Amino acid sequence: MRPKIILFGDSITEGSFEEGGWGSALANHFSRTLDLVLRGYSGYNTRWALQVMDKVFPAGVEDGSGAPLAITVFFGANDACLPDRYGAFQHVPLHEYKQNLHSIVSFIKKRWPTTLVLLITPPPIDEDGRLQHPFVENPSGLPERTNEAAGAYAKACIEVAGENGLPVVDLWSKMQQLPGWEKNCLIDGLHLTPSGNRVVFDEVVVKLRQEGLSLETLPVHLPLLADMDQSDPLRSFKD
Amino acid sequence: MRPKIILFGDSITEGSFEEGGWGSALANHFSRTLDLVLRGYSGYNTRWALQVMDKVFPAGVEDGSGAPLAITVFFGANDACLPDRYGAFQHVPLHEYKQNLHSIVSFIKKRWPTTLVLLITPPPIDEDGRLQHPFVENPSGLPERTNEAAGAYAKACIEVAGENGLPVVDLWSKMQQLPGWEKNCLIDGLHLTPSGNRVVFDEVVVKLRQEGLSLETLPVHLPLLADMDQSDPLRSFKD
Repeated sequence: MRPKIILFGDSITEGSFEEGGWGSALANHFSRTLDLVLRGYSGYNTRWALQVMDKVFPAGVEDGSGAPLAITVFFGANDACLPDRYGAFQHVPLHEYKQNLHSIVSFIKKRWPTTLVLLITPPPIDEDGRLQHPFVENPSGLPERTNEAAGAYAKACIEVAGENGLPVVDLWSKMQQLPGWEKNCLIDGLHLTPSGNRVVFDEVVVKLRQEGLSLETLPVHLPLLADMDQSDPLRSFKD
Repeated sequence: MRPKIILFGDSITEGSFEEGGWGSALANHFSRTLDLVLRGYSGYNTRWALQVMDKVFPAGVEDGSGAPLAITVFFGANDACLPDRYGAFQHVPLHEYKQNLHSIVSFIKKRWPTTLVLLITPPPIDEDGRLQHPFVENPSGLPERTNEAAGAYAKACIEVAGENGLPVVDLWSKMQQLPGWEKNCLIDGLHLTPSGNRVVFDEVVVKLRQEGLSLETLPVHLPLLADMDQSDPLRSFKD
């Protein structure tokens, strides 16, 4: 069986195979070494994620095809919806978000002790973008998400990683280092442009490499054309 | 387990998760319904494919995660390399190509009788593009592939589909219906541009739909945000 990486998260994961998406970029990068498995659920927060862990990670998988090499856990953008605005039904209080992330990590590590769990913080929020592209009519003139709140959830995510000894992509900080990140990296103040997707892809590849998962270390599936003896290509398949 | 579609083929399959690729477009299209599994091997012809069937489709998969819903089989572009030019080591004679495709289909149907096998013909060849972008130095001034040869292999592929009662995407014909297909659909006379990828994606989605596999018929994995009761979202997870 070819090893696999599961991408678990909300809409920013579900949409990661759109054009220029970070999921398809990973699938392409690892096209001969790993399978990328998409488990993104638009709108989900960590509270809802905990309701579906058994269905997202069925026990049968551990028998049939082994433990995943890695799982990215990328939640927080919905948890960080403010409790008094139109996205309130998605809001999860900060302390509960942190506890939920711990529970998600525990579930995975109990099922597959060897699997690398890579946390990803929510992205920064461009509040102007949220006002221009609200999900529902929003006469309040106030965004349902703020960058400050997203930052608090990002900080909690980083703490959970630290408390579990896990790697983490601090997307909230990383993205804000780019000039014009508000429009260059975000379509609607929340979801990612191809440039924003590129930040996620680059950071995930770096973190995986730091944990020993890279094109240099992973076995290639089946002989590469470049390695074949053109005078006797079938020899490559004999072993 | 979420059902899956396996993409089996040569470089046009291996590269199908590049930006604008038909594989990532399928993965995005079916993001909440199916897993797309990439099994593309650059440079491979049907002769080499037959050498690796057990490794591409390990028996364990049938126990652990069930039969794939569908498998696309997309070979012929390399088989159709001319036997007296620089790609000769990839060449497979037409009658053997046809027999090999039959064998690939038989292997899959024996392993998974219910799995839909969807054949895809090789794309047309833009000989000018091949001369401008040869894989290796090519002082002969003659392309290693011709559109006429690709067409003969496409015809054989369609015959194999007919003889097995399988659906087939006649990419060779379909693409040539588009004005300027030579440069619009092909990067280097052989591999696909985003427009060329779009043709494959569209045709595969049509064929899958004709066989009953579409977003209208496939179950969605876990509750959709739009279906949730905002006043009691957790209710969606109780069943």
